[in-house]
Amino acid sequence: MADNQSKIYDLVIVGAGSAGLAASIYASRYKINHLVVAHKPGGQAAWGHLIENYPGYQSIAGQELMDKFIEQAKNLGAEIKPVEVLEIIKQGQGFLIALRGEETIQTRSLILALGTEHKILNIPGEKEFWAKGVSYCATCDAPLYKNRTVAVVGGGDSALTAALLLASYATKVYLIHRRDVYRGQAAWEEKVMATPNIEKIFSTNLVVIRGDQVVREIALDKPYQGAMSLKVDGLFVEIGSAPSTYLAQKLGAALDDQEYIKVDQNCQTNIAGVFAAGDVTNQTRLKQILTAASQGAMATYGVYQYLNKKS
Amino acid sequence: MADNQSKIYDLVIVGAGSAGLAASIYASRYKINHLVVAHKPGGQAAWGHLIENYPGYQSIAGQELMDKFIEQAKNLGAEIKPVEVLEIIKQGQGFLIALRGEETIQTRSLILALGTEHKILNIPGEKEFWAKGVSYCATCDAPLYKNRTVAVVGGGDSALTAALLLASYATKVYLIHRRDVYRGQAAWEEKVMATPNIEKIFSTNLVVIRGDQVVREIALDKPYQGAMSLKVDGLFVEIGSAPSTYLAQKLGAALDDQEYIKVDQNCQTNIAGVFAAGDVTNQTRLKQILTAASQGAMATYGVYQYLNKKS
Repeated sequence: MADNQSKIYDLVIVGAGSAGLAASIYASRYKINHLVVAHKPGGQAAWGHLIENYPGYQSIAGQELMDKFIEQAKNLGAEIKPVEVLEIIKQGQGFLIALRGEETIQTRSLILALGTEHKILNIPGEKEFWAKGVSYCATCDAPLYKNRTVAVVGGGDSALTAALLLASYATKVYLIHRRDVYRGQAAWEEKVMATPNIEKIFSTNLVVIRGDQVVREIALDKPYQGAMSLKVDGLFVEIGSAPSTYLAQKLGAALDDQEYIKVDQNCQTNIAGVFAAGDVTNQTRLKQILTAASQGAMATYGVYQYLNKKS
Repeated sequence: MADNQSKIYDLVIVGAGSAGLAASIYASRYKINHLVVAHKPGGQAAWGHLIENYPGYQSIAGQELMDKFIEQAKNLGAEIKPVEVLEIIKQGQGFLIALRGEETIQTRSLILALGTEHKILNIPGEKEFWAKGVSYCATCDAPLYKNRTVAVVGGGDSALTAALLLASYATKVYLIHRRDVYRGQAAWEEKVMATPNIEKIFSTNLVVIRGDQVVREIALDKPYQGAMSLKVDGLFVEIGSAPSTYLAQKLGAALDDQEYIKVDQNCQTNIAGVFAAGDVTNQTRLKQILTAASQGAMATYGVYQYLNKKS
């Protein structure tokens, strides 16, 4: 299976969001021979419009901050492979990692910094109109809706910030939330409430997305201003994220009841040599770039101790 | 006792190092009416020469990074009082805080981000020659030793980085460590080993510091190259830090056996409404700006939930 038997890494970090990149920065400082593999370097943070609570930066675009993380990791010596990991298999004291279209690689330890993936609404029309008006990334697609009408679904920070960003482009933004209160930071909520072209619709669900070549209309489960549907040119789904635990589960890592990877204080999973960090774990109740990066650093510290104990 | 009864803060953060400032940044984002009190804003991080592992900054002076934290906290609305806290007393559901030379203030909750203080050698001459050649801060005093001979005591990151910084000024740096291996990051150790004007002395202790107006000589507990003492112009003590728990202890916060404040995953101490974050807690085994700041953010998140549950 492995056609590159010669090289065995001490550490492979799977994922290159805040956690994976911080783990790599620390691994380089600890002189741990490592590789970072990530299908999409930058992670969820790169989708963030404006980051205003990462200490050290007053206000910075998510992509820009992640570019700084990537540059710093590379300058410290990190090798970052932008390929998909197909499977991770335990073999003896180490692990084999199968990469799409590339050789299988070997490592003595792992940090799973797999992050989270967007949740979907799971209603008719959502799949059909994906990338034809249905979007999961306001940062990416907001500029397409200049002078148009859009809807945002959700009530947390990502929905609030998406609505604010879209309001700076679109004529009108419907912000549709299934509950009667938002659950994001007060600062965002205050800005949303003060933005006149955001129409706040509470206690309402979407039931279907309709259109022709593109999205034209969304249907609601209760009337808003007398109508059961709204004419929109785009729909942004911002209802949260779920952990990306497919690879971890296949490897045998224990998950909690919400499917996050269980880790201890040292970011160690139930499998010796396998560590996890960032949003994918059950330790970061507050999911932020800062907390994920901190976990990445701690995971590397755990790996450093693990490798030194072994050798 | 309280002569300013009108104002009751929702949160007072004691300490303005990485943890306290990150806590304030998050408190402002959560719209928590708060005050930061710190005798010396900037904390231990401000003493750091070059920080090369804070994600987002390739290489930055500790003071400069802390100035950015302070500026960011202030721009988000933080009030930072640079005065000493004399005592914290529980009163009813809240707390009274006595400040040196100022009014007593009241708060509903607290984040203790008290940090750590330098450990001392506790040998004859150390107190006598403090600021007369004995220093606990290479960053501050290194430039005074251009073309002189100095010694650094210690074997961790702070000793290794102090030796490296001093080696760029001094003619010769003795690095004296009581053990036979360093316990800092491999990157620093490698640089130290490759720096010819750092003389590494292992398994040796200092027993006395001698001089006249200033430090002249340090005595060792075993000979180095045949001599029981070394002629030096300065001595840098870099043997680690101890948590600053005087205020916490008086308030009744539970400490672990190493005197760190015990906190749970939400940074909550054993006292309702009292949270702690950063180096002073038992949760950050890896003591870094990043991990302390992350704890500060989590403590604020804990406070936010605590205040919302109460009201």
